[in-house]
Amino acid sequence: MNEFDRIREQVEAGFPRYLDHLMQVCAIPSVSTVGLGLTDMTDWLESRLKELGASVSRLSVPGSPEALLGEIAGIGPRTLMIYDHYDVQPVDPLNLWITPPFQPDVRDGRIFARGAADNKGDLMARLSALEVYQDLYGDFPFNLKFFIEGEEESGSIHFERICQEFSEQLKADDCVWEGGWFDLDGHPEMYFGCKGLLYIELHCKRLSGDQHSSVAVYAPSAAWDLLRAVASLKDEVGNICIDGFHDRIVAPGPREQELLDSMPFNEKAQLERLGTTEFAQGLHGPELKRAVLYSPTANIAGFETGYTVPGGQKTVLPAEAMAKVDFRLVPDQDGTEIAGLVRAHLKRHGFGHIEVRVLSHENPSRSPLDSALGKAAEAAAKRWFPKPMTIYPYMWATGPMFPIAQGLAIPICSPPGVGRPDSNLHAPNEHIWLKDYQDIIGYTVAYLREYGRV
Amino acid sequence: MNEFDRIREQVEAGFPRYLDHLMQVCAIPSVSTVGLGLTDMTDWLESRLKELGASVSRLSVPGSPEALLGEIAGIGPRTLMIYDHYDVQPVDPLNLWITPPFQPDVRDGRIFARGAADNKGDLMARLSALEVYQDLYGDFPFNLKFFIEGEEESGSIHFERICQEFSEQLKADDCVWEGGWFDLDGHPEMYFGCKGLLYIELHCKRLSGDQHSSVAVYAPSAAWDLLRAVASLKDEVGNICIDGFHDRIVAPGPREQELLDSMPFNEKAQLERLGTTEFAQGLHGPELKRAVLYSPTANIAGFETGYTVPGGQKTVLPAEAMAKVDFRLVPDQDGTEIAGLVRAHLKRHGFGHIEVRVLSHENPSRSPLDSALGKAAEAAAKRWFPKPMTIYPYMWATGPMFPIAQGLAIPICSPPGVGRPDSNLHAPNEHIWLKDYQDIIGYTVAYLREYGRV
Repeated sequence: MNEFDRIREQVEAGFPRYLDHLMQVCAIPSVSTVGLGLTDMTDWLESRLKELGASVSRLSVPGSPEALLGEIAGIGPRTLMIYDHYDVQPVDPLNLWITPPFQPDVRDGRIFARGAADNKGDLMARLSALEVYQDLYGDFPFNLKFFIEGEEESGSIHFERICQEFSEQLKADDCVWEGGWFDLDGHPEMYFGCKGLLYIELHCKRLSGDQHSSVAVYAPSAAWDLLRAVASLKDEVGNICIDGFHDRIVAPGPREQELLDSMPFNEKAQLERLGTTEFAQGLHGPELKRAVLYSPTANIAGFETGYTVPGGQKTVLPAEAMAKVDFRLVPDQDGTEIAGLVRAHLKRHGFGHIEVRVLSHENPSRSPLDSALGKAAEAAAKRWFPKPMTIYPYMWATGPMFPIAQGLAIPICSPPGVGRPDSNLHAPNEHIWLKDYQDIIGYTVAYLREYGRV
Repeated sequence: MNEFDRIREQVEAGFPRYLDHLMQVCAIPSVSTVGLGLTDMTDWLESRLKELGASVSRLSVPGSPEALLGEIAGIGPRTLMIYDHYDVQPVDPLNLWITPPFQPDVRDGRIFARGAADNKGDLMARLSALEVYQDLYGDFPFNLKFFIEGEEESGSIHFERICQEFSEQLKADDCVWEGGWFDLDGHPEMYFGCKGLLYIELHCKRLSGDQHSSVAVYAPSAAWDLLRAVASLKDEVGNICIDGFHDRIVAPGPREQELLDSMPFNEKAQLERLGTTEFAQGLHGPELKRAVLYSPTANIAGFETGYTVPGGQKTVLPAEAMAKVDFRLVPDQDGTEIAGLVRAHLKRHGFGHIEVRVLSHENPSRSPLDSALGKAAEAAAKRWFPKPMTIYPYMWATGPMFPIAQGLAIPICSPPGVGRPDSNLHAPNEHIWLKDYQDIIGYTVAYLREYGRV
């Protein structure tokens, strides 16, 4: 029996237990945005890490939820960090969930629950993989640091300070990041960096209270102001037109361009998944692929003013309006700087009275494409997966890589994980396939084994 | 004792009872938008009308709430209709109410409750006035038709059909409309018409479901589309720029211009009330006064998309967005025509995919300024109120006058009522002054007496 078959067999034997673990953690409503169930999660994880022989520390700074650091001493000099997060996104709109988000439901070969894909699936796959590894091979040939934070879904506001505060304890040679994906055609994906995120809330208040809409003839409208202010962030064809916004954007280098050229992007399948017939701004072909990785975005995540009951007819002139805009940033844009540019833009366009609250910002991040971990994950993937893996210099989503990759100078790599494009991340009916969960447990064992050899 | 002192004395004697009646009806949550408590209201009113000797009919057409018609035969050939409505606006935002909207609270000489000003205060003042009149003078020297509808606050959708269906029963020579106001300086106000209202909901859907905001680089955004579409309804200085929108607007005639010139408008007090330092579009002076009566509006009554919990950070690209826009129309704009112009505008600007749902439309209305009722109300006001009355060709708010004034050709006049500009109509903490309620009961008796004489 070859090595991979042995791994597969061992994973299969333990799978009912690993699935049960995933069901257990998915039942804990650890929504960091509203501070729910976080202690239940850390307690569960601490006990599981200790089962695996780890010594566990709880790392925090004032105001932060606790991050867990589980350390397992190995027999080599090298140290591998594994990063995941135990918090999940909010669940609205709740009415669109087929089964309740925190009552994990197995159906059609899948497990449906908030967090199943992002990121409890990867987290539990990796914890399971550590057990399989120990059962098969005993001690690790490197030291392991399992680092699990609790506010990734609310912008990792304190994560950078935690990394700074505990920099000695967090030293490592490589870092496994939360999982990559499978694309729509089943190709596994691996990432070495990520886009940044600046999340702002815009508040406009023009009157001391809501008014009868008959005074709209002379009363200033916060709704119109904020609508026009947000609309002004893009030009007529949809390009972001904030002065200075694009100044620091780095074009792809030769190796990145090579990866970009070979990067698959199934336009037809994506359009079908989205339920639309064309991409924004008419993007397609190489231009679209380049935009996916190298274009920043400005997204309206929410907007609310006045009376919003569908079909209802309240004739009100609202005193206030609120918008949420998230910007995905690309190297080397800087979140703090962009927030300043947004403020300057609004002022210049006559919207200086609109308040810009920065809820969070995370800078974009890149790591070397030839790290030891990257090579191990790539080598294992070549033999583990039936389809070739796609390597991305960075992913189009965001994670708090910057404090690790740049702040602690630990190269990051994000090997394939349990998610697929239709996993409904951040949306109702989030789910993963049971077979993917099982497969990724095995693949994780495979690349840990490989990493021990390089 | 002169006639007015006798009226005042009689009103004072019965006032505890009349106040109790108002408290009772304000405790009934008759929100027509959501169909609450409407039957409780009609039952209460039917019994009260019968107490006053009226025969009561319930008028309805398929889908409508019941309108009440209380008929009291008098001893003259002329027939006076009194129109009011028993439904009220929704109560959101509920958290801003100091006391619950449907638990009427008397404090600081005022009564706070949803509907206290709009329109239960006037309705109850008039019912009370009928009793006072009968106690003082016996039978009315004219026939009375008290016509009370139940969906004024949701656009009187079926009112025109009710008026058509029961046109014979609704015949009258004059119609008292729901009350006018006192202005900020205490001048009573009287109206002979009103602006129209077109209330639309705009719906935009671009994706089959909400998406993770990282795909904003290529996924079409309903939020951006709808934001830009609504913003396009006005130009940069705030003028409505829908082609054809202004075509039918009639300029003030000589008598109207005269009224406009003498119309008081306390700019300083209005700004203070609104909690702002300048009017929209820099309006002031004669231009502002003319705009109040002769300018249509486009007001954003509500806008909602995506995740809207303040401070929360859901990175979502919403699949759908919804806006509510209400247009106040001036003679001779037509609601149906304007809805068509809005659709054409959106199509022309590339927003043909946005659905326009007309929730309701009421056409603007005018009546002759020299009707018998108008003269009676004016004559009584001159002697009743300490400050001179302002006469407006029409009011800047909207009521379903068109089916009565134009449809049934009954001249309408809206004599002073219980509301003041700070009564918080359609807003939290709606209220009226007890002394205004008492005063308007008496004034109503006075002009009914006057109307019996002309």
